[in-house]
Amino acid sequence: MSYNNISTASEVKLLYSKFCSPARICTLTVRFNNTLTDVGSLGPGGFSDHEFEFGDGGPDRNWKGITISLLVIVVVMSLIGLAIFLLSNDNNSKSLGTQLMLDDLFQKDFQMHNPDAVWISDEELIYRTYDGDVMKLDLQSNHTSLLLKNITFVSNFTPFVRIPLLLSLYRFSFSASYLIYNLQTREVHELNPPEVSQSVLQFASWGVRGQQLIFIFENNIYYKMNVKSSSLRLTSSGQEQTIFNGIADWLYEEEVLRSHTAHWWSPKGSTLAFLTINDTLVPNMQLPRFTGSPYPHGHQYPYPKAGQFNPSVKLFVVTLDDSNQLKELLPPDKFDKSDYYITMVKWLTDQKLAVHWFSRAQDTSILSLCEITTGRCAKKHVMTQDKWIERQNQQPFFSKDFSVFFLTKPIKQGGKESFHHIAMISDEYVTSGKWEVTEILEYDDNTNTVFFLSNEDGVAQRHLYRVSTVDRFHRECLTCTLLKPHCSYYDAALSPGGQRVVLSCRGMLIHLIIHNCGHSTMKRKPIINNSLAKCVYISFFRSSAPGGQSVSDQFHLDWDSVLVSSDNVVVARLDGRGSGFQGLSIMQDIYQRLGTVDVQDQSAAVEYLIKQPFIDQSRVGVYGQKSDQKSILNLIQLFFSILFMFGLFAGSAFTERYFGFPAKYGFKYEISSLLPNITGTSTNLRFLIIHGTADASVHFQHSAELVKFLAASNINYTLQIFPDEGHRIQSRYYMLNSVLTFFRECFRGLEIQTD
Amino acid sequence: MSYNNISTASEVKLLYSKFCSPARICTLTVRFNNTLTDVGSLGPGGFSDHEFEFGDGGPDRNWKGITISLLVIVVVMSLIGLAIFLLSNDNNSKSLGTQLMLDDLFQKDFQMHNPDAVWISDEELIYRTYDGDVMKLDLQSNHTSLLLKNITFVSNFTPFVRIPLLLSLYRFSFSASYLIYNLQTREVHELNPPEVSQSVLQFASWGVRGQQLIFIFENNIYYKMNVKSSSLRLTSSGQEQTIFNGIADWLYEEEVLRSHTAHWWSPKGSTLAFLTINDTLVPNMQLPRFTGSPYPHGHQYPYPKAGQFNPSVKLFVVTLDDSNQLKELLPPDKFDKSDYYITMVKWLTDQKLAVHWFSRAQDTSILSLCEITTGRCAKKHVMTQDKWIERQNQQPFFSKDFSVFFLTKPIKQGGKESFHHIAMISDEYVTSGKWEVTEILEYDDNTNTVFFLSNEDGVAQRHLYRVSTVDRFHRECLTCTLLKPHCSYYDAALSPGGQRVVLSCRGMLIHLIIHNCGHSTMKRKPIINNSLAKCVYISFFRSSAPGGQSVSDQFHLDWDSVLVSSDNVVVARLDGRGSGFQGLSIMQDIYQRLGTVDVQDQSAAVEYLIKQPFIDQSRVGVYGQKSDQKSILNLIQLFFSILFMFGLFAGSAFTERYFGFPAKYGFKYEISSLLPNITGTSTNLRFLIIHGTADASVHFQHSAELVKFLAASNINYTLQIFPDEGHRIQSRYYMLNSVLTFFRECFRGLEIQTD
Repeated sequence: MSYNNISTASEVKLLYSKFCSPARICTLTVRFNNTLTDVGSLGPGGFSDHEFEFGDGGPDRNWKGITISLLVIVVVMSLIGLAIFLLSNDNNSKSLGTQLMLDDLFQKDFQMHNPDAVWISDEELIYRTYDGDVMKLDLQSNHTSLLLKNITFVSNFTPFVRIPLLLSLYRFSFSASYLIYNLQTREVHELNPPEVSQSVLQFASWGVRGQQLIFIFENNIYYKMNVKSSSLRLTSSGQEQTIFNGIADWLYEEEVLRSHTAHWWSPKGSTLAFLTINDTLVPNMQLPRFTGSPYPHGHQYPYPKAGQFNPSVKLFVVTLDDSNQLKELLPPDKFDKSDYYITMVKWLTDQKLAVHWFSRAQDTSILSLCEITTGRCAKKHVMTQDKWIERQNQQPFFSKDFSVFFLTKPIKQGGKESFHHIAMISDEYVTSGKWEVTEILEYDDNTNTVFFLSNEDGVAQRHLYRVSTVDRFHRECLTCTLLKPHCSYYDAALSPGGQRVVLSCRGMLIHLIIHNCGHSTMKRKPIINNSLAKCVYISFFRSSAPGGQSVSDQFHLDWDSVLVSSDNVVVARLDGRGSGFQGLSIMQDIYQRLGTVDVQDQSAAVEYLIKQPFIDQSRVGVYGQKSDQKSILNLIQLFFSILFMFGLFAGSAFTERYFGFPAKYGFKYEISSLLPNITGTSTNLRFLIIHGTADASVHFQHSAELVKFLAASNINYTLQIFPDEGHRIQSRYYMLNSVLTFFRECFRGLEIQTD
Repeated sequence: MSYNNISTASEVKLLYSKFCSPARICTLTVRFNNTLTDVGSLGPGGFSDHEFEFGDGGPDRNWKGITISLLVIVVVMSLIGLAIFLLSNDNNSKSLGTQLMLDDLFQKDFQMHNPDAVWISDEELIYRTYDGDVMKLDLQSNHTSLLLKNITFVSNFTPFVRIPLLLSLYRFSFSASYLIYNLQTREVHELNPPEVSQSVLQFASWGVRGQQLIFIFENNIYYKMNVKSSSLRLTSSGQEQTIFNGIADWLYEEEVLRSHTAHWWSPKGSTLAFLTINDTLVPNMQLPRFTGSPYPHGHQYPYPKAGQFNPSVKLFVVTLDDSNQLKELLPPDKFDKSDYYITMVKWLTDQKLAVHWFSRAQDTSILSLCEITTGRCAKKHVMTQDKWIERQNQQPFFSKDFSVFFLTKPIKQGGKESFHHIAMISDEYVTSGKWEVTEILEYDDNTNTVFFLSNEDGVAQRHLYRVSTVDRFHRECLTCTLLKPHCSYYDAALSPGGQRVVLSCRGMLIHLIIHNCGHSTMKRKPIINNSLAKCVYISFFRSSAPGGQSVSDQFHLDWDSVLVSSDNVVVARLDGRGSGFQGLSIMQDIYQRLGTVDVQDQSAAVEYLIKQPFIDQSRVGVYGQKSDQKSILNLIQLFFSILFMFGLFAGSAFTERYFGFPAKYGFKYEISSLLPNITGTSTNLRFLIIHGTADASVHFQHSAELVKFLAASNINYTLQIFPDEGHRIQSRYYMLNSVLTFFRECFRGLEIQTD
């Protein structure tokens, strides 16, 4: 197992202890207007006195595949482009550290670290150190003990440890061989199905009780009561690439559950709920393979596109006693004869579980409460919307008697714009205001308190709050005044009893120049502290996927940080219509018109940027024949039309959410009609296209069609392919270097002509 | 059927009548030192008095896949590169025409035309005019008549005409639907197998007698006595992508026969000889498909690589009378139990045919003469060589009594170097000298005369000669003094009776600066007439495949012509060791060491070029840190190592010819071991890689491995893929423009730094 596998298999995040050494703070603060401070003290109020803060490793919310780290399309206005020079150098006196170079990103000191902190009880935390050792922290005694040295990659903590050998598949999934290692006896067992040796499993994990564990092999679930007991096969319907038990097919992994696992342990480990996903009718997509052998063979897997057959799904529960009773939990009558998704399953007790069912159109959802003794599910809540329903995976938080539960739901504020707030079902709202609750963390029945994260203090921020359901005006921010300098973007993980919390500071301050553009009233926050900027390059990023947010205080370090630091570039991130956490009307304005209003917003942002006082308009150079504003807008339109095209032919759940079920284009494939007619105006454009040829989410198909289109339109492009690599490019250094080089080369020409 | 299909399906060649208009001659002469003259008079001697000259359309000899028109790899010395300025401007006074632009290559006036001239009797020729009309020329009456207006693409001439709709497959093959059109009655028939309509056929063509024709459908041969008779299936073993009757599989098409057809009519049309090629054991290669549908499906076909199972082959004859008697002609005993190839089949009479059998190692060949009445084949000639045998497809020319026949064979000249000369078997040589007979055209029994082409007058030239087998010193060049200005590169097609000849002038004069480099004694012919050259860029081209020749007087017009004309570039073409027509020792010096001696020759050529007096050494700019000679040589080594890699994993017949049967590497695939260790020295290199992703001959696999290697070595590259395009890029304008732009951009930077 190589180091590469480890670092890419786990989310890479910032380790505060390394990063916030006094020597570094200064440098980084000035560079990015972004710093990370030492750990301060948590305020009082329901929390333990014990202060504890990690960098965090939650799942990336920015999940959909059209962002820069995945498939990269960079449009640079080359000959028709801009070379803009700053006028106002009033911040020039600030001392700057050394410039951030690409190589720095790959230095050990700059490696961000995910401690994988996990509560194993209300008093005990397990986490991984920067050096890879696995530690246990007892908060009662304040004692830290070493569980395992950094000999290998470890991801699951019980006395037995699994050591996977990873073979990554789609975004979250991988196959692996597993060993079970007894920390006391140092015995090692292979984990295999009966009568199979050296098997490669699709999944393996401990249960919640003792040494119980399950693993998945050839799409069937196997159960072991303990490490030494024999494996029991719980399902037999599994079929390669067709019927999936307990794990997700591509669609469920990528777009519905956003997780590889499709099973859930009951709280005491007596029962397992799991999905059976049947892809028999789903058309197969072929991924080519090019390297590694004289006759490389491609890979084929079910991938429903818009309007195609979706997988069918069933929810089962199986008892983990000797009887292994299997019971199907049926969908609500409404979905009896139509396509539906199961987007969330949450055990409440060992007898009761909550399930979220969605219509294929994603405009109707039913939350039901199922009794596994009877196998009956009762509707608890039905939601319908004109457009699509967001937050499909969110978990409801129930009161102990199940009479009340909490969900975030959109509610009109001031009679017009809707924002997500905490609803105490049925439909009493616990919070309100023109800001959004981003996540409910817990409901404490005893104190009638809901803990949640929201952006009440600023749309780019995330803080931890609590609110009393009895006195709703008693809403309290627990992290707002916690640290100095101000950490403005938190994530939090409550301990099982809700008595402690791991707070993760993800970022501070605002380092982005345009905050909220594209709307009639722009809120301008042109904070330009990168005062050495000589030449401003503008790069566009879509505000991630619909519902996402790219303008936030969340810290990041990437190739654009290098451009900002070393190449005097101002990078603008834009959250136009379609982006999330600013209310529903902004987000859902793109419904069935993705590629129009969002493009308008991007154009408006550029126009706005060019006119900013901190940009020296006399040094705005526009070269070539097509130098008018219109051709820049043309370019932006082309760029976003391409992204639009990518969206349109993505998986069914994604595409249909934003476009509805295809009436016209679903069974056709006329890419040309989607792309603007840009012949003539754009022969000076330059494109950089980066794509892994084995990308299972955004197929190489799209780049191929794009390249054909560009060739037919006589537009130059630069293509970087990563043969047989998937959605996440492994050759990251080379990729980032390509992006930097591309930018630098494009603008080098401009600089020469300017001087 | 679109125009694109037409122009790419037929070889594009120069039409003298358009090209040699007075207005053009001057311009072109000066630009390329290459012109085409009006038709002069043929000299006397065995020929008709009638003068006739076409541009020619023979098959491209430059068949192997690593040349510029196919898969393009251009290496440019960018930062470490050269910017060389001319010193001697003594030709400056010459008047130059306007510069040749890329667009010119696509103007109608610059389209080269293949008249497809075919002798249909000793007196009659059929050809196609530049406008596409099909004409018949009666040389007896000197009367030209119009057979068919240019309504459509026509390729075969009898009273009935087939009109194919092309779907190209590999290099030569295509599928098509055929109509038969009666020129007199204007009736149209579809050509279909029994009980099939609108079929797509793999082949269809007239026979030699009356209206007899065959076609191939689903790998079986069908025969029609005449247009109205029913179709008779001659074979039944055909199986898609497995067993091929009468047509070639990929290996036979590309590397053995170099033709799609694998059947031969007897002279009077009474019998058909054909191959049955069985690919059951051959591993399949997958070609991906990316575009055109939401779920594009790849293509799979048998493709043996070095050391893998080859197809087995059998030769059958079938009589075309009512009996349809089928007989297998067995290989020589020597090949009974081993792999062999059939490389040539030639009917001598309707009862007798000559067959060339080759060992898989291609170092032993047996020419046998088969009697189809008995089915027995008698060995006529056996050849063995240490290395490989060239000219595997050449036809023998027999005397009427079959007692004597003529072949070109290598023979030592001056006791040391071998050159191909005309052997009168057994092994009397009719010609001799340190030059090569390139092709025997005919043996005239009555006058004991052999007609042939050779490069006796200069290695870059081709002239038509005749020699008497009785008086061998009576060797006469028939075209050497024929035309003024001197045409120096001819091809010729004799009429059936050998009384007339179509001469095709393919080029004149020498426009290349280095003639024969890479050997201990360089023959220097630095003729630089492109006197406006301000900046000399050097581009390397391998001397095509082993046995090929890139330094010849053959005229061509391509992107490099544009560079020469418009960008003041000197293009050097180099025929180092491995190249043909200069004797066997030069050609076969690369045996089992391709990628070593040929690389040395290329390096020597560059060193030589830099030192030439016509290059201003004070203006040789070498930039960057790695400016020593060594890094240039490193670059060349890398470049050729890549070509070497491409060769090594090409089809079995090609690879094994030059490397032998693989003992070590054949079943491994360690590309890394093949490529030089260039880390550090070459991060300034720039590559342009152009490849069609559906290339059936040089798989995209190779570019994928190369790109991985370049990324791992941190070397920049520019990649142009042509999605789902094959070995011949259809988007030719875009491709050529990419090459030109790449060169110009690479050197633009240099020019700026030089000034």
